[in-house]
Amino acid sequence: MSLIVQKFGGTSMGNVERIRQVASRVISEKNNNNDVIVVVSAMSGETNRLLNLALEIGGTHNNLATDMVISTGEQVSAGLLSIALNNEGYKAVPMLAHQVKIKTDGTYGNARIFSIDAENIKKQLENNNIVVVAGFQGIDDYGCITTLGRGGSDTTAVAIAAALNAERCDIFTDVEGVYTSDPSIVPEARRLDVVYFDEMIEMSSLGAKVLQIRSVEFAMKYKVNLFVKSTFVDGPGTQIKFSSKEDSMEELQVSSVACDKDEAKLSIRGIPDKPGIAAAIFSSIADAGLVVDMIIQNISVEGLTDLTFTVTKKDLKKALEITQNMAIKLNAKEVLSDDKIAKISVIGVGMRNHFGTASTMFSALSKENINIMMISTSEIKISCIVELKYAELATRILHETFNLGINNKL
Amino acid sequence: MSLIVQKFGGTSMGNVERIRQVASRVISEKNNNNDVIVVVSAMSGETNRLLNLALEIGGTHNNLATDMVISTGEQVSAGLLSIALNNEGYKAVPMLAHQVKIKTDGTYGNARIFSIDAENIKKQLENNNIVVVAGFQGIDDYGCITTLGRGGSDTTAVAIAAALNAERCDIFTDVEGVYTSDPSIVPEARRLDVVYFDEMIEMSSLGAKVLQIRSVEFAMKYKVNLFVKSTFVDGPGTQIKFSSKEDSMEELQVSSVACDKDEAKLSIRGIPDKPGIAAAIFSSIADAGLVVDMIIQNISVEGLTDLTFTVTKKDLKKALEITQNMAIKLNAKEVLSDDKIAKISVIGVGMRNHFGTASTMFSALSKENINIMMISTSEIKISCIVELKYAELATRILHETFNLGINNKL
Repeated sequence: MSLIVQKFGGTSMGNVERIRQVASRVISEKNNNNDVIVVVSAMSGETNRLLNLALEIGGTHNNLATDMVISTGEQVSAGLLSIALNNEGYKAVPMLAHQVKIKTDGTYGNARIFSIDAENIKKQLENNNIVVVAGFQGIDDYGCITTLGRGGSDTTAVAIAAALNAERCDIFTDVEGVYTSDPSIVPEARRLDVVYFDEMIEMSSLGAKVLQIRSVEFAMKYKVNLFVKSTFVDGPGTQIKFSSKEDSMEELQVSSVACDKDEAKLSIRGIPDKPGIAAAIFSSIADAGLVVDMIIQNISVEGLTDLTFTVTKKDLKKALEITQNMAIKLNAKEVLSDDKIAKISVIGVGMRNHFGTASTMFSALSKENINIMMISTSEIKISCIVELKYAELATRILHETFNLGINNKL
Repeated sequence: MSLIVQKFGGTSMGNVERIRQVASRVISEKNNNNDVIVVVSAMSGETNRLLNLALEIGGTHNNLATDMVISTGEQVSAGLLSIALNNEGYKAVPMLAHQVKIKTDGTYGNARIFSIDAENIKKQLENNNIVVVAGFQGIDDYGCITTLGRGGSDTTAVAIAAALNAERCDIFTDVEGVYTSDPSIVPEARRLDVVYFDEMIEMSSLGAKVLQIRSVEFAMKYKVNLFVKSTFVDGPGTQIKFSSKEDSMEELQVSSVACDKDEAKLSIRGIPDKPGIAAAIFSSIADAGLVVDMIIQNISVEGLTDLTFTVTKKDLKKALEITQNMAIKLNAKEVLSDDKIAKISVIGVGMRNHFGTASTMFSALSKENINIMMISTSEIKISCIVELKYAELATRILHETFNLGINNKL
């Protein structure tokens, strides 16, 4: 008998009919003579509805009371799925964070898990129960409910799989796995059988919203055997695993192309170039809670330099305010901003063993006269900022250039 | 500094605007230099919405998972009210059953409170927090959420007031207190300044749904200083208290007239009269979980007797089935049922000191040619079953007969 953790997202829990479908997927795993722990998200739209109630009355995103409100969606889901399982003749028990003892820090709205006490879950499993855990929630030192941030149920599932040393953690969602690119942009995109942890982390941070990035980091740290599968279609899904030496012999140079239209860029031009300028600018932006993605500083010409960086679109207004104040203080010439941009990234652990991925990428874009405005690279990723209007074209071109399409399947 | 417990029902928590009104009522009590604990119900309609979700997927009323689902309404309310209080500059903290340690038995859907550990609440009060407790919920030995039955938040409030030895427990609702009768039937009905515990318990069991009956019993047992007040209108409300010797000198013969249209009656006619018949019938009804209210057994004529009793309308179908089976077993003639009835009751601790309340009641009804089908009496209550079509008329007649109207105010 193995222990399997399954996680179902909001779309899978969308209505009574779908919850019944989820129940039958859980049951078929149970019937394989496995112990099953299920982690559930709120019914789709429910977390937003609850958050809006809290905001309407004057709440903030990161607040004890807001967390108490928005965590109820998962509680409802856990109860409903347990009922659906009971009705099919299976013993099932819903459990909340205070019962599973998912201890977190006190960062409401974005808490981090310290520990999980597996004993209570084990007792329920020993009584032949399917355990249904409300995802997204933990408790702090005072027993107050905390939430783990958007997509937090993924992290709940992975953390429980780690704490109980599960055979497998299956993240069920509305797609059939991880794809080489967004199929709505690239019709030839195909499901990957395997994605490596490093790649998955880059993808998660690049707007490929299959898994919460923290859940991937967690799985990597605790060596959880992780899969992404479809709730609605049977199939092998995508396995997320460590790359081994054998793998690296045959791996692709690039395994996926991501397109992120959610960034905007700001430039401060003509800054008198003195040490500490970048530090001054970016620490005031960080103090405001804004996250900067790409940064480019031009070489200094006649004692003046330019600084360009990107933030998410929703943070643009706030970032612009801060940057304009800094520009005045630093005696810079002007501040420019542009939210008509897209970030196109190619990702693959195979880059480590192939030379020239960057130049292949740049030539492919240049052949289509797509101008590259910013570049950033990591060991297994290259990202380019291009004009927004080229977002889809650039994605398709690169998908083809690196032979990722259905017809190129190995 | 005194400790005040306030409870706000679903209508008071109906929307964001109303929750702000509730907040200002809480704040004015806090500004009187009091410690305040607030117990809240779910936003109106929310418990039904959640219950229907659970039933739709196949849940039952008395089930662990159903309780987990339906208890979320109060959790949301507690969070929202805390936010509203924070926004007015007051420290407030929402607390759930597992934090307050409201321990109950495991009777899901209708659990009874064993104990409350006041320590966590006290700590929060010492930190100058307004404590906002989610009503209606407790936890069993396993930390699973239980619910206390309809109106259970009243019991939460009274139990907390008892556990913390509060100065006062104010139950806020959408009426200005306890009335001499239902104002929608009797326009002259007036608010009572005082109702005695005994009377309140009779009223609660008679369809005057101001307070959950268990909360009254709890308040009586633990001598909680209990008031019913309006959330929306300032006023003294109604105090629920013990009657003392001084009170009894001046108390009214009858303090209120209640009208309950929620019962139906069944008769088994021509039962061969042998010992143990009533026991046989009523134990099979009790085994099915049905509650019988009034019972009348006619004197035996030629070895045959009739038995008539009432149940709530929703239980009629089930009761009829059981009774028909019993009738066959007992070789009785026939079973009749009637759901076009109303129960009219007069209540008052003053009856103890006044003779002839019953005869006054019966003559008043008879003067209007209202036929009395069944009678039941207690020390402080007389109930008559009449035809449903006379329900309002009978209520008004009795309200007038016992001088309860606005114009008769002492």
